[in-house]
Amino acid sequence: MASAAIDELRKQGGGFVIERYTVPGIKDLAAGARILFDRGCDLVLALGMVGRQPVDKDCALAADFGLQAVQANVGRHILGVMVHEEEASDEVQLAHLFDRRTREHAVNAYDLLFRPDAMRARAGTGQREGFSDAGPLKVGDR
Amino acid sequence: MASAAIDELRKQGGGFVIERYTVPGIKDLAAGARILFDRGCDLVLALGMVGRQPVDKDCALAADFGLQAVQANVGRHILGVMVHEEEASDEVQLAHLFDRRTREHAVNAYDLLFRPDAMRARAGTGQREGFSDAGPLKVGDR
Amino acid sequence: MASAAIDELRKQGGGFVIERYTVPGIKDLAAGARILFDRGCDLVLALGMVGRQPVDKDCALAADFGLQAVQANVGRHILGVMVHEEEASDEVQLAHLFDRRTREHAVNAYDLLFRPDAMRARAGTGQREGFSDAGPLKVGDR
Amino acid sequence: MASAAIDELRKQGGGFVIERYTVPGIKDLAAGARILFDRGCDLVLALGMVGRQPVDKDCALAADFGLQAVQANVGRHILGVMVHEEEASDEVQLAHLFDRRTREHAVNAYDLLFRPDAMRARAGTGQREGFSDAGPLKVGDR
Amino acid sequence: MASAAIDELRKQGGGFVIERYTVPGIKDLAAGARILFDRGCDLVLALGMVGRQPVDKDCALAADFGLQAVQANVGRHILGVMVHEEEASDEVQLAHLFDRRTREHAVNAYDLLFRPDAMRARAGTGQREGFSDAGPLKVGDR
Repeated sequence: MASAAIDELRKQGGGFVIERYTVPGIKDLAAGARILFDRGCDLVLALGMVGRQPVDKDCALAADFGLQAVQANVGRHILGVMVHEEEASDEVQLAHLFDRRTREHAVNAYDLLFRPDAMRARAGTGQREGFSDAGPLKVGDR
Repeated sequence: MASAAIDELRKQGGGFVIERYTVPGIKDLAAGARILFDRGCDLVLALGMVGRQPVDKDCALAADFGLQAVQANVGRHILGVMVHEEEASDEVQLAHLFDRRTREHAVNAYDLLFRPDAMRARAGTGQREGFSDAGPLKVGDR
Repeated sequence: MASAAIDELRKQGGGFVIERYTVPGIKDLAAGARILFDRGCDLVLALGMVGRQPVDKDCALAADFGLQAVQANVGRHILGVMVHEEEASDEVQLAHLFDRRTREHAVNAYDLLFRPDAMRARAGTGQREGFSDAGPLKVGDR
Repeated sequence: MASAAIDELRKQGGGFVIERYTVPGIKDLAAGARILFDRGCDLVLALGMVGRQPVDKDCALAADFGLQAVQANVGRHILGVMVHEEEASDEVQLAHLFDRRTREHAVNAYDLLFRPDAMRARAGTGQREGFSDAGPLKVGDR
Repeated sequence: MASAAIDELRKQGGGFVIERYTVPGIKDLAAGARILFDRGCDLVLALGMVGRQPVDKDCALAADFGLQAVQANVGRHILGVMVHEEEASDEVQLAHLFDRRTREHAVNAYDLLFRPDAMRARAGTGQREGFSDAGPLKVGDR
């Protein structure tokens, strides 16, 4: 997943340096993100996979909590790219999903830092990371 | 949604500047709000939509947690305007709901900053954002 | 509810000033409490009503989380007076419950600040805010 | 419960002073603990009872959250002695349970501060506070 | 469990000192970890067992919350080695699981501090702590 993120980021443009940091599991992402922020990083892409057991869902909740706490303390973005095992029916589909979602979040990361107008232009167009996009919702002028 | 908020705020009066900041999803609202506070904002309106899947509800919980953590750390208001997909039966109704709820929270935002007496006058009158209001509850003098 | 709290506090004695601050909903209580602490308040009574829908219960959980986070950060008490819509069968009973619970928490607030011995004397006597008290539990000497 | 804690602590030895602080309910324990730490306490025993209604369980979750947040902020122990109403079938059994559990946590408190070796010696021996102990689990050498 | 962790860490190499700190239960791990960080530790291995009752699962959630909060505040890793009673059918299997999982996390701890490249090399290979490993997932090149 990390290589897909790096590849996609490089496609978007330059002006950044990537620091990779690998942790054992999703519950370790918050500490890893905080460590990267303490080293001066401006944004963290947190990539992880969530299993299908109830205990895995509790792990994901704890991980999410930690990621929110770090962001609340530090005031910088952590874009969580979590893929749930049961989102795909086999490994091929899962690999596809991993790749697409990671790339879409990499674009989001780039836009947050370098192209806020592009981020705003996509807002409310109903894009779901990793599956086909739904059309934009009609809001406002009725 | 953001344009409805801006339109409604401008209807209420002046004395403020609006800074827009778009994030990829609801779990990114807390970091975005913290960033806006760090830039000197006094109040944040956080607008987002919550899907109908269980994973979306977990996202909403994580998002809420982050928004509370930022408020607890910073001591300024984040008014969350969350619309749940299943609150409306079709896109027309959903668009209506989005618009109304956003405008009502925009009025709340204005009142918190500029008209605390108006906020107090509305307290306990049973107003629900985005649907018809229920009447005020009789409290106290029985 | 706020007027019942103020009335009851004044019945208990003097030595305090009351600052009222109205927020749009229960998820805004934590920020409001933090703002009051930042203005120098020593204790906050947080009054709110929780609806009967599942989404209301999630709001209450988020609100509670925020109130705990503020207290953990600041080290001063927030006494949450939450009334759940389904605790009463009609508006008359609900109004009664609101009034009683608010007054009992107002006494708690006064005691925490001015009469810690009275607070200790009531501890373990099984008092439930807003319904009839159950008798004290026999602890220890058997 | 507090008197059982104090009695048991005094049986363990000296070298400490006890400060009692009574709060209205379990959701107020976190603020109370933080206040005691701010007054210079080294460890807090937080005693409370949890009712059998779902709303009581939500209170316990919020209380636990607050207690963890204070400990994470301050870096000192809060030993929570929570008794759930449904753990016992009548008041006599409940009183027994209260007393035993409180005393066992009081010993833990003493050991954390003065006898860390005794704490380590008991680790992994399967002791449950307030009910009969199960035997130690055989780990490792099979 | 602690001795398995120490044994495994020593097998990996040198350059570190181990400080043991025993707490009464899993809800006390966060405070213990924070205390160890305040004493200058660089990483904490938090070892604990979770019972099979619902109340034990709530404890685990509270413990996880605290561990995430400490990591978010401090920016150093706590590797939680939690074993759930129901993961094994008897004590022999449970002891085996304890031992294996503890050793695998000890290797993770060593790698995080001294061999980040080894950590990265294992990432995405689908290793589960304490049970047989599943094969690596094919990602990317399809």
